[in-house]
Amino acid sequence: MKYAIIGCGAVGGYYGGSLQHAGAECHFLLHGDFDHVRAHGLKVDTKTGGFHLQRVNAYARAADMPRCDVALVALKATQNRLLPEILPHVLSADGLVLLLQNGLGSEEGIEKIPGVRKIVRGLCFLCSNKAGPGHIRHLDYGMITLGRWTADGKPAGITPEVEAIARDFEPTGIPVRPAGDIVGATWKKLVWNIPFNGLCAVLRADTGRLMADSATRGLAEAIMGEVTAAAAACGHPLPGAVGEMMALTEKMTPYHPSMLLDIASGREIELDAIYNEPMRRGAARGVQMPLTGMLRSQLGFIATC
Amino acid sequence: MKYAIIGCGAVGGYYGGSLQHAGAECHFLLHGDFDHVRAHGLKVDTKTGGFHLQRVNAYARAADMPRCDVALVALKATQNRLLPEILPHVLSADGLVLLLQNGLGSEEGIEKIPGVRKIVRGLCFLCSNKAGPGHIRHLDYGMITLGRWTADGKPAGITPEVEAIARDFEPTGIPVRPAGDIVGATWKKLVWNIPFNGLCAVLRADTGRLMADSATRGLAEAIMGEVTAAAAACGHPLPGAVGEMMALTEKMTPYHPSMLLDIASGREIELDAIYNEPMRRGAARGVQMPLTGMLRSQLGFIATC
Repeated sequence: MKYAIIGCGAVGGYYGGSLQHAGAECHFLLHGDFDHVRAHGLKVDTKTGGFHLQRVNAYARAADMPRCDVALVALKATQNRLLPEILPHVLSADGLVLLLQNGLGSEEGIEKIPGVRKIVRGLCFLCSNKAGPGHIRHLDYGMITLGRWTADGKPAGITPEVEAIARDFEPTGIPVRPAGDIVGATWKKLVWNIPFNGLCAVLRADTGRLMADSATRGLAEAIMGEVTAAAAACGHPLPGAVGEMMALTEKMTPYHPSMLLDIASGREIELDAIYNEPMRRGAARGVQMPLTGMLRSQLGFIATC
Repeated sequence: MKYAIIGCGAVGGYYGGSLQHAGAECHFLLHGDFDHVRAHGLKVDTKTGGFHLQRVNAYARAADMPRCDVALVALKATQNRLLPEILPHVLSADGLVLLLQNGLGSEEGIEKIPGVRKIVRGLCFLCSNKAGPGHIRHLDYGMITLGRWTADGKPAGITPEVEAIARDFEPTGIPVRPAGDIVGATWKKLVWNIPFNGLCAVLRADTGRLMADSATRGLAEAIMGEVTAAAAACGHPLPGAVGEMMALTEKMTPYHPSMLLDIASGREIELDAIYNEPMRRGAARGVQMPLTGMLRSQLGFIATC
């Protein structure tokens, strides 16, 4: 399939670049990096070497782009307000959006955009960052959990468009795991993101240091417990998820999620998708999340001062 | 009365210096500042000028000090382990200790020291810091709430030794307010110290900035609510204290409590007296303090890394 890559940062640059490198036709919508990428292409470093795409279909305006089978959206959730100006130009009649984002609540806004007909959510388990213009540094992992989102929130099963996207990723070597219940999988990812994105930013430390201190380790675990309680109340029980996520964090190379860097660089952080919306959904079903709320308040404070 | 001043930092230097300046006989036990203070005396700057005590009775060892009517202890609670080596040398037969410290649990250890017969706790509402060796900078306030501590925790009323100390402070101009229930007053001070000491350190901000952000302001208020719930369960109901403390913080000159500076300077912080002991007493009476516990974990983390 033909892909429109909306957002070419650490996520879009890595996945979009990998798709093109593996042979897919990709068209990149760029903002600050447009001149650089048009002239020099896109470079992706990986632990084992990486690749340099000399020729990239680069666009500064969505109106100049061709219609594509898939609009791969890799903006931060805070940038989704730009999508009504972008998606109607690039979607084909199928109106298929592949949304690579964390957190809850984005699809509800995107599905109202004219031309959007199907949304597939991809949850990326990825450590990468942007090293410079048109230059992505991939650090570790990359797996995408992929599932069709539906407005009623019910598990959609493994649908044909999920299978088609998974097939396109096969030659990239990036593992893709189809998920029948993508909203449940989104909650499960939040079990990790809510404690660690926030605590690493507020305490200016990586996951390794938080795990080495029994008090902050216990705090992360307690926050995870609040998230799984909210998820269960919303119809997505996640038995064993807390233990699984703690074991995973224990094993992983110490990692510093990008939130503190985003704050230091003046970029808006995804408070709404990662904190506010899960707390709202929990509260609507009677689950209070006081520790999550405290972390959210602290993040909001350091982000605005 | 004759005073032994144990600890000559921002608290002991200010109050001990003020007592001597007003005419009381004082004997200062010094550690790092001994040589400087013996040679140059003690300087206290205040907003309206201050004073310089050219001659100070300075001692490097408690064994060299005379016995005094009052041992004024102005160490941090974390330094109380030094007191068994100090107090037996300086106490008179009355065994009167004036303990100028925050938090709970210190008296229980001090009353076991040979020679200690009566403990008066002073709660200082003071903004001051140490500008250099033998040099205290007083910023604002100074009032001491003073009350007799008793092992059974019951209100002792206004006792003769409280009145005697209050009389000695009269010529200093520092307001002293006798309190019949000093343990209740200690809890009330914790209503302020627990949220603001911790949040100012973790978020690297002064009280003014925390009060200006509705989320952190609300967080401080919620933590205060946990403290008053624990205090009430321990027999010290504090009706109206949260509103009073919030209004006071609103009005005060933005202030940055010393905890972050202490951490940056490698000094031990009073986690036990200000956080752990109140949480233990609350928990023993069925009051959980999750937000306080989270703040305590964060403080412990930044203090050890």
